[in-house]
Amino acid sequence: MTATAAPFGPVPTPAPGRVLVDGARVATLSIADRGLHYGDGLFETIAIRDGLPCLWQAHLTRLRLGAGRLAIPMPDPDLLLAECLDLSRGIEAGVVKLILTRGRGGRGYRPPREPVPTRILALYPDPTPPPGTREGGVAVRWCRTTLGENPQLAGIKHLNRLEQVLARAEWDDDAQAEGLMRDCHGRVIAGTMTNLFVYTGGRLLTPRLDGCGVAGTVRALTMDLGPRLGIGVAEAELRPADLGAADGLFLTNAVIGVWPVRSLGDWGFDVGRLPQSLMAALGTAVHAPDIP
Amino acid sequence: MTATAAPFGPVPTPAPGRVLVDGARVATLSIADRGLHYGDGLFETIAIRDGLPCLWQAHLTRLRLGAGRLAIPMPDPDLLLAECLDLSRGIEAGVVKLILTRGRGGRGYRPPREPVPTRILALYPDPTPPPGTREGGVAVRWCRTTLGENPQLAGIKHLNRLEQVLARAEWDDDAQAEGLMRDCHGRVIAGTMTNLFVYTGGRLLTPRLDGCGVAGTVRALTMDLGPRLGIGVAEAELRPADLGAADGLFLTNAVIGVWPVRSLGDWGFDVGRLPQSLMAALGTAVHAPDIP
Repeated sequence: MTATAAPFGPVPTPAPGRVLVDGARVATLSIADRGLHYGDGLFETIAIRDGLPCLWQAHLTRLRLGAGRLAIPMPDPDLLLAECLDLSRGIEAGVVKLILTRGRGGRGYRPPREPVPTRILALYPDPTPPPGTREGGVAVRWCRTTLGENPQLAGIKHLNRLEQVLARAEWDDDAQAEGLMRDCHGRVIAGTMTNLFVYTGGRLLTPRLDGCGVAGTVRALTMDLGPRLGIGVAEAELRPADLGAADGLFLTNAVIGVWPVRSLGDWGFDVGRLPQSLMAALGTAVHAPDIP
Repeated sequence: MTATAAPFGPVPTPAPGRVLVDGARVATLSIADRGLHYGDGLFETIAIRDGLPCLWQAHLTRLRLGAGRLAIPMPDPDLLLAECLDLSRGIEAGVVKLILTRGRGGRGYRPPREPVPTRILALYPDPTPPPGTREGGVAVRWCRTTLGENPQLAGIKHLNRLEQVLARAEWDDDAQAEGLMRDCHGRVIAGTMTNLFVYTGGRLLTPRLDGCGVAGTVRALTMDLGPRLGIGVAEAELRPADLGAADGLFLTNAVIGVWPVRSLGDWGFDVGRLPQSLMAALGTAVHAPDIP
């Protein structure tokens, strides 16, 4: 069964029976949940290949970091894995979205003293990439919507995502695969759903994420794999002009893997100048199962 | 029936049967709702007195502003009022929280082309103010958590509230009624759940909210009532030192009404120096019904 086959069909929402809320096969949530009221929670978007979650350890590491930052009790990792495997059984290619909230609460921002987190896992179809993406690269645009700065929320994958929603609402043209976002100082931070790498002078630069942005699992993988293949990777403060002067750009996330960029607004890039060994290694590693 | 009486009791979550989701008396939400996934929505917190919503027009105005900003279709105001009245029937003093989300969606930030919004109304008990608040004022502290800047989200009451949650989690001492938050430039913006007014030189100043913060209904009421009682009100850029040098401070929101501040961190204030006529007029106007 592939992600686009039944029972998914063209339905964009999770298929009935492919959702677990606190381990139960229901598809509803209490309206008292703080995930709804405040976005008080975290999520992970996990690629599934042949019934197994990819980059599982990296997702778990980031979830744990976020849970620590927000003081949400971290669920038992074995339980999360068991539920993820349960949903993924028989799935050739798909996506499991895992949401962890602070659970139910009363009215008011004050968190409960002893929160009982809610965990939601839902299986979604694997998205179809724009045709020719892997070889030809994707077209990318600039977003006007900026990212607010907050060091306490930077890096983690929390549920406050209106900035990304507004940025993604800026275009409705399928020819544009992604949009790049800047912070309020004009620094380039990330795509709406991807991290950015800039290849320049034989090494890779990626935006520093200490004020905003999400530290992606494939971003971490790239920072680890690059040096092992002889390509230095550094975090940097990047301006639009730095991207225009680069030899190439690529975007990463756990579902799409790696997208070479063939254009950014009016600028064109030769995707053949990107480090091919690293691109190939990433393409493989991204969708490799990584479970205990 | 008062807000603290049955069926609320000590239960902090909405009472069963006192919740409407899209008009139905259920207390659950589809896990496909974008309110959960991204905080993709808005809310209003409405004081109820004698079965009627207070400041109804002001809440509706802000909800409409937010819906326009996020491009979420605004529900029929008559329907919202009917549902609010339905929940409030027989309630002497309570709170109705109204949540409006962009409705269900698939995975991914991109908003549906034709969203079908979800509306949730839930009745909560009226909170008990700290004793002696009205006369003696409240003790307030500084929060370390800052507010990120985003002009597109500033002023509206959207569901991305992790900054407020983190700020409110900074203290667990009931003697401190509220915490003040600054933006990343050190400007004072608001309390975690209140707007701030600074009385100085015979007039009122309130932080400008073009980069962050929520433009409260009672803030708008104060800016309207002040001049009518001979007290000028202006928006300003305020630093902590401006508060320390003020004759007095007060906090506002639609549920609590007005809280004079008797202390902010180590600084003490004489609440008797606040403009008493305005304070009294606000106290009355805040909880006056205002329905068509």
